[in-house]
Amino acid sequence: MTESDFLDRLRSLPLHPGAHDLADDCATLAPYTITTDTLVEGVHFLATDPADGVAWKLLATNLSDLAAKGATPVAVLLNYPLRSTPTGEDWDAAFLDGLATALKTFATPLLGGDTVSLPAHAPRVLTLTAIGRSGRAPLRTGARPGDALWVTGTIGDAGAGLRIAQGQPGPAELLDAYRRPRPRLSEGAALASHVHAMMDVSDGLLIDAARMAAASALAVTIDLATVPLSAAYRASGGDRIAAATAGDDYELLFAAPAGWTPPVAATRIGAFSGGSGLALTDAEKPHPLPARLGFQHAT
Amino acid sequence: MTESDFLDRLRSLPLHPGAHDLADDCATLAPYTITTDTLVEGVHFLATDPADGVAWKLLATNLSDLAAKGATPVAVLLNYPLRSTPTGEDWDAAFLDGLATALKTFATPLLGGDTVSLPAHAPRVLTLTAIGRSGRAPLRTGARPGDALWVTGTIGDAGAGLRIAQGQPGPAELLDAYRRPRPRLSEGAALASHVHAMMDVSDGLLIDAARMAAASALAVTIDLATVPLSAAYRASGGDRIAAATAGDDYELLFAAPAGWTPPVAATRIGAFSGGSGLALTDAEKPHPLPARLGFQHAT
Repeated sequence: MTESDFLDRLRSLPLHPGAHDLADDCATLAPYTITTDTLVEGVHFLATDPADGVAWKLLATNLSDLAAKGATPVAVLLNYPLRSTPTGEDWDAAFLDGLATALKTFATPLLGGDTVSLPAHAPRVLTLTAIGRSGRAPLRTGARPGDALWVTGTIGDAGAGLRIAQGQPGPAELLDAYRRPRPRLSEGAALASHVHAMMDVSDGLLIDAARMAAASALAVTIDLATVPLSAAYRASGGDRIAAATAGDDYELLFAAPAGWTPPVAATRIGAFSGGSGLALTDAEKPHPLPARLGFQHAT
Repeated sequence: MTESDFLDRLRSLPLHPGAHDLADDCATLAPYTITTDTLVEGVHFLATDPADGVAWKLLATNLSDLAAKGATPVAVLLNYPLRSTPTGEDWDAAFLDGLATALKTFATPLLGGDTVSLPAHAPRVLTLTAIGRSGRAPLRTGARPGDALWVTGTIGDAGAGLRIAQGQPGPAELLDAYRRPRPRLSEGAALASHVHAMMDVSDGLLIDAARMAAASALAVTIDLATVPLSAAYRASGGDRIAAATAGDDYELLFAAPAGWTPPVAATRIGAFSGGSGLALTDAEKPHPLPARLGFQHAT
């Protein structure tokens, strides 16, 4: 069953109103905003990735979902599988060190969780649930015709960092973008009450923008020439299509009224209009869509 | 690393006050009570267990933790691994059917979750997080010297049911106790404001009673002759020690002032006193402790 089929069937179960029809990364249970992410070894992280970085990423990706709702973290729950392998002990200890660092960095305490045993050769499956508080939490469904599409930070660094983690040469800055994403918590909090729609870029700029447009029943056009790239990414020779289709950026993507200027560092990369689908331009000339818009789950 | 070592290290991380020092099955985040459980294929359920029953159990075990805090379920989050195997599709569909039935039975809606892909041969790792509301939530740490120890329902049925699931002959009633535990939600709600300490019996009556005593810095004595057994369990030839050391009962175990009578069906099985440890009697004569008190995780 694909993730999309599974989600369709989940929607036929009794849903809480705060589930937002399972169409957003976060749920609402007043006064809290709640998100949960599972990382699977070999799927979401490499068996060779350092455990402290995996812990950081597990927390950071969840906090990034909270950031996209303008929420301030309150606490997290951890579901952790202990695996009795020769190197299991070292991995667990390094994971805990990384989690301690990350929790302190983002001023987020542990609220609870569950620890289980895993068979010796099973891939690790790590779940973290993050709970935050926000005032107004913008959904991904709220973009309006004529809205501008904006993104914080730069795009593609983590994708280039993944290739470095897999053995290609490249600068530590890009590897760090892959291993230690920084959730845009303060930016999200500053934006939440102003924007019409917001989500984080986790699977790739193009696919995530297309998802926001679809959720808002609109079309979106992105001008590739405006996609913000870091100096390190440019120096590494990466192109804009690769940047816009790589995942793990954890920047904030938001729709806001044309003419409005965000109170945080961000780049205007496109616009919404009536219709459906994603279109690309490059310096305002039409540009073909790549075959792959980003990372698609379980299809 | 053992679960106990891991928990000790987790306690050195920044903890939320509602984490109760990670010494209870539930956390408190006003106005909510939160619990999360992970079930691993081959550890907590058999690969041959019907998927709808696994879904039921995943929900029921979490709601049982809420019941022990007197909480009424508000919503749940599901972290689900899709596995692309020849029979994966059927398993997923049966799981969803079972979850739908269980959510409706316990009037609990789905709030959100995460769906991920699992490598083809990896064991399923299922996480559910349940959120409830309660007035006063009794912890397992609150038993006082002189308190009586009580348990709801009967003990050992699920343990006998597990052997039936593994192929031994036996009545459907016991198999059902293993596959479809009923969380004691109404009993928990009726007891919560009166009892000194409460928890559910998940790993075995003796080990869980010993844990309540240890958490409360007390000794506890249980009279085996009083442990309540069902007619089906007696007819199947099971003995009291087997019943008291099997897991998966999901009855409520609680400490209450001597002389107080609970407002729900329950059996007085022991008493707390100063000191530490667990002692057994049988019709008030000393009885040796069995080598194994119940199911111990990851040791």
